Amino acid sequence: MTRKLFELVGADPLRPFSPYCWRTRLALAHKGLDAETIPWRFTEKGAIAPYKSEKVPVLLDGDKAVVDSWDIANYLEDAYPDRPSLFGGEGGRASARFLNGWGDMVIIAGILPMIIADVVQRLGPEDQAYFRRTREARFNNRTLEEVSADRDSRVEGFRKTLDPLRLMLRSQPFVGGQSPNYGDYIMFSGFQWARGVSRFALVTEDDPVYDWRERMLDAHGGLARTLPESPL
Amino acid sequence: MTRKLFELVGADPLRPFSPYCWRTRLALAHKGLDAETIPWRFTEKGAIAPYKSEKVPVLLDGDKAVVDSWDIANYLEDAYPDRPSLFGGEGGRASARFLNGWGDMVIIAGILPMIIADVVQRLGPEDQAYFRRTREARFNNRTLEEVSADRDSRVEGFRKTLDPLRLMLRSQPFVGGQSPNYGDYIMFSGFQWARGVSRFALVTEDDPVYDWRERMLDAHGGLARTLPESPL
Repeated sequence: MTRKLFELVGADPLRPFSPYCWRTRLALAHKGLDAETIPWRFTEKGAIAPYKSEKVPVLLDGDKAVVDSWDIANYLEDAYPDRPSLFGGEGGRASARFLNGWGDMVIIAGILPMIIADVVQRLGPEDQAYFRRTREARFNNRTLEEVSADRDSRVEGFRKTLDPLRLMLRSQPFVGGQSPNYGDYIMFSGFQWARGVSRFALVTEDDPVYDWRERMLDAHGGLARTLPESPL
Repeated sequence: MTRKLFELVGADPLRPFSPYCWRTRLALAHKGLDAETIPWRFTEKGAIAPYKSEKVPVLLDGDKAVVDSWDIANYLEDAYPDRPSLFGGEGGRASARFLNGWGDMVIIAGILPMIIADVVQRLGPEDQAYFRRTREARFNNRTLEEVSADRDSRVEGFRKTLDPLRLMLRSQPFVGGQSPNYGDYIMFSGFQWARGVSRFALVTEDDPVYDWRERMLDAHGGLARTLPESPL
């Protein structure tokens, strides 16, 4: 039975951009597992309703449906124990729970206001209306363009929040040590999302985080590079 | 041969307060190892010079001297493999490198300006002069009292930076999962340092981080509670 993954796309079905879907896509690659993409758009709630989810990723593995990137990572780790470990043991799995929150609250939430006006440009017309309505409500009804307007000054604060990652990179090339593991996929996913929808420079080329991102783009045969860079 | 640990104290030799020394003390307890305290003060550089260190903790284990809390944790993990693991496997050890940086840059560096004027009150006269001179230089020659003056407003920002820890605590009681491991000692050490030198409330009683700190105070037979709370 073929493995299938619902992945968020916009107008271009070949450009999956959700950071959470990228966590799963990289986790699958880490385990040496493939999965057919089912392109999914924000307004296609009906397609994933049978799996009791309103969000992607949703992984279909045989007759099993697994929802939520964290739960999928744990599912893959437990269902495929003979494949390379995503966490490197139970201590790694436990602390990845913290890394997952850091990746969500510092990286993804930090990047979001800087690229949100770019995200909407990547969507089809129906999704654009949905995205504007739901996201502008979260930002006190400011337009997405207003939210992103101060990004040139905001980016300095974002770069500063990456200091713990930068400090770690003085000692080792990946969160996982000498090779990437799920902790890297958590953190990288936000950068990969941004890369697909925006040309805004989140880090400078002389930043060790930039080099780490390059290594992550190279990982698993350059899987993340298969996402075309944003055209604007 | 008796194990010995140089631990930073101020005027009261029974009040070791360095967060880095607490990381080591809790790591020793986790491994079920005891170590005699050698009280050490900022100005006693000569006492640890033979071990090629200017800072504590310094652990003496038989004829081995180990310097720096991170290196000590790794030493203990490798030298006592049959004792409970500090990291829960190699993935946990690798990601603890990131946690160590987060603990240093977000927790300890976040707390420092809020309690630095209290820290100096806990020191003997000679250490007070040393501490003021070296620390005020790091804060652009502002007095320690000036640095701490805005703590009532600053603490809100600090509490916000703990969101990733708070999010994790919705899923599990410790960074280590169901029981504490070195990731918890890294993060808790900053709170323990503050507890010994200051009465300033870093978190509110309705905060899940407060409850986690209580659990950490209870860990290993209440080891961290043996540090008397700051008298002021």
